[in-house]
Amino acid sequence: MKYELYYWPEIQGRGEYVRLALEEAGAGYVDVARGPRGSAAMMKMMDAHTGTPPFAPPFLKAGKLVIGQTANILLYLGDRHGLAPKTEAGKLWVHQLQLTITDFVVEIHDTHHPLGPSLYYEDQKAPAKKRSAEFWDERVPKYLGYFERLLDDAGGAYVTGRRLTYVDLSLFQIVDGLRYAFPNRMKAFEKDIPGLVDLRDRVAARPNIKAYLASERRIDYNEQGIFRRYKELDA
Amino acid sequence: MKYELYYWPEIQGRGEYVRLALEEAGAGYVDVARGPRGSAAMMKMMDAHTGTPPFAPPFLKAGKLVIGQTANILLYLGDRHGLAPKTEAGKLWVHQLQLTITDFVVEIHDTHHPLGPSLYYEDQKAPAKKRSAEFWDERVPKYLGYFERLLDDAGGAYVTGRRLTYVDLSLFQIVDGLRYAFPNRMKAFEKDIPGLVDLRDRVAARPNIKAYLASERRIDYNEQGIFRRYKELDA
Repeated sequence: MKYELYYWPEIQGRGEYVRLALEEAGAGYVDVARGPRGSAAMMKMMDAHTGTPPFAPPFLKAGKLVIGQTANILLYLGDRHGLAPKTEAGKLWVHQLQLTITDFVVEIHDTHHPLGPSLYYEDQKAPAKKRSAEFWDERVPKYLGYFERLLDDAGGAYVTGRRLTYVDLSLFQIVDGLRYAFPNRMKAFEKDIPGLVDLRDRVAARPNIKAYLASERRIDYNEQGIFRRYKELDA
Repeated sequence: MKYELYYWPEIQGRGEYVRLALEEAGAGYVDVARGPRGSAAMMKMMDAHTGTPPFAPPFLKAGKLVIGQTANILLYLGDRHGLAPKTEAGKLWVHQLQLTITDFVVEIHDTHHPLGPSLYYEDQKAPAKKRSAEFWDERVPKYLGYFERLLDDAGGAYVTGRRLTYVDLSLFQIVDGLRYAFPNRMKAFEKDIPGLVDLRDRVAARPNIKAYLASERRIDYNEQGIFRRYKELDA
């Protein structure tokens, strides 16, 4: 079975956490909206009046299933591709961590969109500056400090121990994305998260991820995604 | 087994979605932080260096398991107490809807905290006003319109059909909370969501929920929670 991934074709965005899992697993998939008439197909599925129409992309078609919400897709894929523990307790734990990353991703997005997702960045530059300062003072240390501590306590190469899970792939994306969006702030902060910086490199060096990052399937960072480089928001 | 719920003792907040599920199920539980030394016990569990220390409340202790993240707790409880379908597809669908509600709850919170959760409301009143306007213009119609459509398409009493799930309990809380926080705006908007208004009443009339709402276990709405009544943000 070949998976069908539906996500905005121009950005990494939330789809990227799913792409990284599919790539690491070596799973066959089509990034539908990047192909001809793909965006129209995506919209049509969201407008459906039967089945399980998602509120927003990303969503994954897996056989007859249509699964929405990034963390929910990872819950499904983790189980099937060895990217999560096999026990119920382990699955709940890894999913819990992914949901914490999900919360952090909203806060990353809100650094440039504090007044809401429907207005342009240009119409909220002053509040974005305040929110970004607050984000780096309070939220980044809190979130990344938490994951750094878990990594340390796990005593293995990955957040839950010796084996890679989809959470590690997502943390790669977080560290990498923050480097892109806030190069100065991140440079100053990295000394506080040596474990996560190592984790980022360890994930990037995995053969499937390495090949993916070098391919055209990896969309470049840009100023339409979650991680945006706006000089005035960096320190 | 008696569950232990850990959440801030003074507010409904995100803990309320868990409380509603426990109450509907008639499950035995202790709301730990509302008891003596409960808040200290909660903090201690979050600071643990072994096991599965949660990033934030709410979390649920279920025997040996410590489960964090509201939607993750509901995923667990739904399965055990008949508050979710039994098939994998059904479970993923209901969880997906809960994660969409989770996203909406963040946006509800951000109406009064657009510059971030660490600053006081008093320090962000002007951006809060802008964000609230945007929220009611764009986001409420989009989110509640989606659930109204699902309810309509399902053709049953509940969002996924004839049987109540934890998502219906959460939608009760959303409609009820928006009524509290934005009485004027909600009054004008309710004509667009007749199905959800009926659903709210149907949930409120269920014996276990009715008893819960009348009890002291239900904390009153107040201006420390997610749903806050600030006149200047209402129309």
